[in-house]
Amino acid sequence: MNHFFNVKTLDEVLALARTFSPVTAETVNIGEASCSRVLAQDILAREDMPGFRRSCMDGYAVRAASTFGASESTPAWLEIAGSIAMGDIPEFELPPGSAARISTGGMLPKGADAVVMVEHTEAVDAQSVEIYKSVAPLQHVIDASEDFAGGKVVLEKGTLIRPQEQGLLAGLGYSRVKVFSTPKVGIISTGDEIIPITDSPVPGKIRDINSYSLAALIQETGSRPVRYGIVKDDPHALEATCKKALAETDMVLLSGGSSVGTRDYTVDVLSRLPDTKILVHGMSVSPGKPTILARSGDTPVWGLPGQVVSAMVVLKIAVIPFLNQIQGLSAPIEPIRVPARLTRNLASAQGRRDFVRVALHPGEQGVEARPVLGKSGLIRTMVHADGLLEIGEHVEGLEKGCIEDIILF
Amino acid sequence: MNHFFNVKTLDEVLALARTFSPVTAETVNIGEASCSRVLAQDILAREDMPGFRRSCMDGYAVRAASTFGASESTPAWLEIAGSIAMGDIPEFELPPGSAARISTGGMLPKGADAVVMVEHTEAVDAQSVEIYKSVAPLQHVIDASEDFAGGKVVLEKGTLIRPQEQGLLAGLGYSRVKVFSTPKVGIISTGDEIIPITDSPVPGKIRDINSYSLAALIQETGSRPVRYGIVKDDPHALEATCKKALAETDMVLLSGGSSVGTRDYTVDVLSRLPDTKILVHGMSVSPGKPTILARSGDTPVWGLPGQVVSAMVVLKIAVIPFLNQIQGLSAPIEPIRVPARLTRNLASAQGRRDFVRVALHPGEQGVEARPVLGKSGLIRTMVHADGLLEIGEHVEGLEKGCIEDIILF
Repeated sequence: MNHFFNVKTLDEVLALARTFSPVTAETVNIGEASCSRVLAQDILAREDMPGFRRSCMDGYAVRAASTFGASESTPAWLEIAGSIAMGDIPEFELPPGSAARISTGGMLPKGADAVVMVEHTEAVDAQSVEIYKSVAPLQHVIDASEDFAGGKVVLEKGTLIRPQEQGLLAGLGYSRVKVFSTPKVGIISTGDEIIPITDSPVPGKIRDINSYSLAALIQETGSRPVRYGIVKDDPHALEATCKKALAETDMVLLSGGSSVGTRDYTVDVLSRLPDTKILVHGMSVSPGKPTILARSGDTPVWGLPGQVVSAMVVLKIAVIPFLNQIQGLSAPIEPIRVPARLTRNLASAQGRRDFVRVALHPGEQGVEARPVLGKSGLIRTMVHADGLLEIGEHVEGLEKGCIEDIILF
Repeated sequence: MNHFFNVKTLDEVLALARTFSPVTAETVNIGEASCSRVLAQDILAREDMPGFRRSCMDGYAVRAASTFGASESTPAWLEIAGSIAMGDIPEFELPPGSAARISTGGMLPKGADAVVMVEHTEAVDAQSVEIYKSVAPLQHVIDASEDFAGGKVVLEKGTLIRPQEQGLLAGLGYSRVKVFSTPKVGIISTGDEIIPITDSPVPGKIRDINSYSLAALIQETGSRPVRYGIVKDDPHALEATCKKALAETDMVLLSGGSSVGTRDYTVDVLSRLPDTKILVHGMSVSPGKPTILARSGDTPVWGLPGQVVSAMVVLKIAVIPFLNQIQGLSAPIEPIRVPARLTRNLASAQGRRDFVRVALHPGEQGVEARPVLGKSGLIRTMVHADGLLEIGEHVEGLEKGCIEDIILF
């Protein structure tokens, strides 16, 4: 009665991710290199950044030594040697015992090594200023190589480009940058009971919920879903559509086929594809047991469970780490986990990893995780949930009141 | 010496967000209605979902009463009344004492109210099956209105469309849906010291880091950054560019101008724009004090601090809640906070809210938050950080070892 011949644990499945290769690289304008793009080259700081000694404050550029001992009661008296305009190179060297007006971001003149904030000064006249606070060398300045020193690798290949990395690339003058291409993920809906969402509902048939939920999850990872429509339970049609998707995309998801019959013929179809091997046939997680993973050439092909919740959970916990690998990331993106207090006892089976949908609510003792009950065919349970509570293989259950980490959607 | 005339706390600033209006709505294909799109209409379940009684298991559709008392030792013997093909409407009514083969997702025949899993059965011959486990009414089935009952509002205007909401829209047949338009955010870089990123670095000048970091943060919210280039410190040029951005976008960010002089003339320029009022001139947060907010008609215009870290922090903590309001969200998206143990003492000034950059690392007693030290003009400190530690206005400092929530980037 066991229809699964190669049941693997989640960890065993995830260990297979590294056996796949990233997509090819392309060079893009930096403005396009955000939102989940991944560096396909090391980034060298070609020169020091900011490249000159800059003020971080509005005030006076000084030689720090000229201010030593200065205080409210015994101010230092400095001669004003000039004003520095923003963006200009000061043409004078600052003599000892003098100061130059400077704004935040301005370049310090030669000889100056610190800035006194304007709040700690009082202009005496046009030629002189009193300093009420001493400053240390390099105080209130950014030194020429303080952000980054030239000649060093500052970002490595495989790094996710967040807004700050994009800012750094801009600062280093990388107006174009080599990144991994955006992976394309083919989505094939299967099942005689699935109808297009534009069709009116008929008893016995349901609209194609899964491929939309899955496509949106794929989009959230920064990848591009490619929809191949609905294929009826016909091995030849499925084989043809699989071949087309394999030729055009970097990963293929078969969605639907939760019945044993459909699963069996999905495995048959996948096994018959050229250069294709079934790697996983069943995964010891709930929901999500009837998960199939095959390798076709260098492309992962997933047979996802037909129940919408199961399909979404498997995508989140198992498929996305593979997608991260294909995106070129040097390490998969860890899902975000936040702690919350469980509001009821939860049973769990040994030897199986459970993912329980929970809604998060503010409680008297912090955030509460309320399990969202309902069968894994109900999209409602996902709409009402904020995340997943993971219960390990060796845990028999969790008690009300315990604090557990919740994987956020 | 106080250049701020209308300094507000962060909470006072955030309270102003609700005074702005969302963008207009548009009707889009559902496939485009994901990744930060927001519903601009209530969604009614026009009919029951799934609309018929469906099996959640492979097995036999039965009248539950026919299985009562069945066990391994005393199986119930049922006559096989037929097989139900996926997607079909069964044409027979199930008589008492009989069963029909059914797959996951199949429609139960009239009379049947439960499903026995195939694992708990044994086919005797082509006409009969033994049942080893009793089932309760509605066990292993999804009833016709169990996911959603027709005639009810299931999603409200102002809801963020996550993958599960997109799945639900698909299931309900909303192939097109009314959503708020994607907000456009104008970004104007200002400052005589700023050069385009394609230019070679020259002492005194720095490349335009900020507008790239800010544009990427805007993109992450699902909004569309529109870049208006670099404007020199010239009030007329800034006024002209502001007017153009105000005419074309839903929010305007002026980036740069961290010096007092620039701030002053930014305020002057904004004050002179038609129908424009300065709402905030200084915010009691660090970094980020020199923040300006004006209302021009119904458009928020921000003068962001020039230091890159300050600008990014202000965008994250103050600007994004305004953007959420403009996106049409019924409530701003709460930043994600995860607890971590502080690795050193941190001082903080009373009456000011501090946001300290921290890097998160696994530690012996859980995740550790290591403050990333460095001036707020250094993009490096953001590249090395994973989030922000918030220290409240009434807190003088935090001690090493305490556990605090970290706002994730």
